[in-house]
Amino acid sequence: MGGVRIVAIMKLRSIGLATALAVGSAGSMLAADADIAALKAEIAKNHDGAVARLQDWIRRPSVAAENRGFPDGADHLIALLKEVGFQHTERIDTTGKPGVFATLDAGAAKTVGIYFMYDVKQFDPTEWKVAPPLEARIVDRDGVGKVIIGRGATNQKGPQAAFLAALDAFRTSGRKPPVNLVLVAEGEEEIGSPNIRQIVYQPHVQAALAKTIGVILPMGTQGIDGGVTVNLGAKGVIEVELTSDGQAWGRGPMRDTHSSFKAMVDSPLWHLVQGLSTLVTPDGNTPLIDGIFENVRPLTEEEKVQIANAARKLTPRQYQAASGATKWIDDLPFQAALERLTSQPTVNIEGIHGGYTGPGGKTILPHRASAKLDLRLVPNQTAEEVLGKLKAHLVKHGYGDIDVNFTGGYNPTATSAEAAIIKAQVAVLKRNGVDPVLWPRLAGSYPGFVFTEPPLSLAAGHFGLGHGGGAHAPDEYFVIESSNPKVSGFDGAAASYVDYLHELAR
Amino acid sequence: MGGVRIVAIMKLRSIGLATALAVGSAGSMLAADADIAALKAEIAKNHDGAVARLQDWIRRPSVAAENRGFPDGADHLIALLKEVGFQHTERIDTTGKPGVFATLDAGAAKTVGIYFMYDVKQFDPTEWKVAPPLEARIVDRDGVGKVIIGRGATNQKGPQAAFLAALDAFRTSGRKPPVNLVLVAEGEEEIGSPNIRQIVYQPHVQAALAKTIGVILPMGTQGIDGGVTVNLGAKGVIEVELTSDGQAWGRGPMRDTHSSFKAMVDSPLWHLVQGLSTLVTPDGNTPLIDGIFENVRPLTEEEKVQIANAARKLTPRQYQAASGATKWIDDLPFQAALERLTSQPTVNIEGIHGGYTGPGGKTILPHRASAKLDLRLVPNQTAEEVLGKLKAHLVKHGYGDIDVNFTGGYNPTATSAEAAIIKAQVAVLKRNGVDPVLWPRLAGSYPGFVFTEPPLSLAAGHFGLGHGGGAHAPDEYFVIESSNPKVSGFDGAAASYVDYLHELAR
Repeated sequence: MGGVRIVAIMKLRSIGLATALAVGSAGSMLAADADIAALKAEIAKNHDGAVARLQDWIRRPSVAAENRGFPDGADHLIALLKEVGFQHTERIDTTGKPGVFATLDAGAAKTVGIYFMYDVKQFDPTEWKVAPPLEARIVDRDGVGKVIIGRGATNQKGPQAAFLAALDAFRTSGRKPPVNLVLVAEGEEEIGSPNIRQIVYQPHVQAALAKTIGVILPMGTQGIDGGVTVNLGAKGVIEVELTSDGQAWGRGPMRDTHSSFKAMVDSPLWHLVQGLSTLVTPDGNTPLIDGIFENVRPLTEEEKVQIANAARKLTPRQYQAASGATKWIDDLPFQAALERLTSQPTVNIEGIHGGYTGPGGKTILPHRASAKLDLRLVPNQTAEEVLGKLKAHLVKHGYGDIDVNFTGGYNPTATSAEAAIIKAQVAVLKRNGVDPVLWPRLAGSYPGFVFTEPPLSLAAGHFGLGHGGGAHAPDEYFVIESSNPKVSGFDGAAASYVDYLHELAR
Repeated sequence: MGGVRIVAIMKLRSIGLATALAVGSAGSMLAADADIAALKAEIAKNHDGAVARLQDWIRRPSVAAENRGFPDGADHLIALLKEVGFQHTERIDTTGKPGVFATLDAGAAKTVGIYFMYDVKQFDPTEWKVAPPLEARIVDRDGVGKVIIGRGATNQKGPQAAFLAALDAFRTSGRKPPVNLVLVAEGEEEIGSPNIRQIVYQPHVQAALAKTIGVILPMGTQGIDGGVTVNLGAKGVIEVELTSDGQAWGRGPMRDTHSSFKAMVDSPLWHLVQGLSTLVTPDGNTPLIDGIFENVRPLTEEEKVQIANAARKLTPRQYQAASGATKWIDDLPFQAALERLTSQPTVNIEGIHGGYTGPGGKTILPHRASAKLDLRLVPNQTAEEVLGKLKAHLVKHGYGDIDVNFTGGYNPTATSAEAAIIKAQVAVLKRNGVDPVLWPRLAGSYPGFVFTEPPLSLAAGHFGLGHGGGAHAPDEYFVIESSNPKVSGFDGAAASYVDYLHELAR
């Protein structure tokens, strides 16, 4: 559900991390460091092939909402995983789109879980101005360097391709990774991961994951300034489509009719608008669904301190650029706006449609109208709870006839700052001179719950250098060759996984 | 704005009017009656050519909302008018689509005004199931007879073509019409007649109209059962498009952004929904725009009697079939629902659109959303007043940034039951055994105000036998050959104008 793009704006101003990593820090020239240096050289040697692999991948879109590119996307990912050294690969068919399960046994002491998504967000080619969405063209971008343009470039194929390039460097240099890997992938992340349980809870998959120290989602976590934020979780989400229809309501017209009848006939479109209006405060900002705050846990003191620290290092301008907005709700000051971003559940209208929407007017009374909503959830809300409360609210307020079609979603996810996979991230970054912001949770969502909740109860997080932008938007990009020494290019991103896997192995 | 289709459902059960007209009523065999009989025979003789003319006309759509078929539609109408005997024809260009002005001097004592519209409503060919919208195919319709299918068939080309066929019968039989004619036509009726004043108030047009005894809109006023209602006016209307936009608001995103930002950023789409919700009661039925009822005149006792009479002759089933609804607002009984239909101003949402409306979901926070509204007006509201009150309401309630784009509309119109053109209608109908319902006003709208208000202050009404349906909807039709003796076909419709013009001449 697009965790990536949000992370991309939660970056610290920081020293030149990519440079620092390339040089290595003095006083830590352990045995592994020679391996790491060799692996980074190998990554550079393999660069052209790895980028070509990413381009080829972008040219094969899988879009779950459009039933496009299945099961091809899963099969192609399996081929990629085999190529970089996974000994076991397996397509896991579900009642929706297939998942992928793969393992790489390096004979190591520790095993790390990896989560991939092979699907991408829908795209409208007419909106892409820099390059077409499926050409994977590499272009110069002012102030950034050479970037690859394409749907999925940063969300999530670019970072995942960098991770594969890291593994490939082990293989082509005749080395074994320092940890074993268990990888699960899905093809429905962008529609709310409706069937991820069918993949992860396959007994042999669950058993394999249970042996890991946590699960990592490869991500280009650097901001345009090179800064990195370490996320300790993400909001949950549910997506629903609300439809008001004369037939279901038993009132209003059963087909579009002449608008003059409005004086004697009810309107399903007004019914939808008035039903929607009960869901939030008049300013559109605070949910009013009955009982929705019942299980909302306020920010802890630790989380408030994390946000206060972040507010000193982040800038409003970064958030303005990322959000396209110039003011925050209630004209809140920046830190309070960040607290709101992190702590508050939301009811958002993704889109609304009903009646005549062509040029000019058309005097009809529509018989049907729909709105697509997403609701973001915070601890300790659950997806099931909020969906139930939404439905109960509509019934109680006289809108029980409005159809609520749940199209996907899941619970919030949280991981402790003390988890091994988080501490390893902080250690790698700090060793290279970066003091990362610990951020309580992404305001975006990803299906980490499937790992962090029982029965697995694993830590889960995102990691990776590199920078991208435009997830879910036109002209999505990922940096291939950075013109900013503080920002890693594709090879730097791959190298960061070499560092991280070694750190996890310690 | 589709007065036609509403008239079409306000029909009486009545005796076989078409048959009665063909036979003539005993004891009134005046000199004119021989002429009338000859003219009706001439109409039958000209039938094939007249229907071919209608078919050709339907195949030439002018759609103002789509800027399609201009100025061709005006030029084609001019050619049709010349053909049937108008000596003077003139295109009146406006800042919008051109109008037409034409006169037919028959050397008669009286002059009658005629209003035509040459534009048609938009149409989506994929929705037409019986026949394509521009083929003008003649098909059998169960229980009705042979009908012509096409956009404009009943609204308004069919009835207008029948009127032209009546005039053509005078010409081809070597007779002069019993009245002089002054005709004005517009090509923007379906977008609210925004420029009709520029046509009607051209000094020479206004001067010509000032000499008329009133203005008639040809219409197929018969219901499926053959009944006829005489309308004494129509509601006014304004059409507006309301747009909420982050840029104009200065809040929310300036472009579509990721929905996770909802927790810190305002939503222009929610702003629109909440702004709309203040315009009507929660049931969507009663306008709440500040002061909107200030000038609403309640039904007079005479109007209530007219409605009570109508309620005895009309049936809920007729209104259910026409409206596509099975229940009335507040489950009102039929007569009360008819009073509501006639007396109440409305705020209707024609359509609403914003954000993502494709398959599945898309987690965006849209920067913009629009709703198209029509507001129907009753005496003594005016279009200018209601538009001003809508804007003031939005400002007062915190939605002053929402753009209100007025796309067309006009005042209500009313004509006395004592007007000569109305009395002539009633006389023609009664002489043929029909006791018409006098109906206070159409719930639909047409720009009669331009004739009934100063400076012209003329009577205005609709007249014509014949039956059609599906105005503004797919598979619009007009009856060519009726299988029901109570309902006129195309020739009967043409004959009704011969009768009416003679009655007006008395």
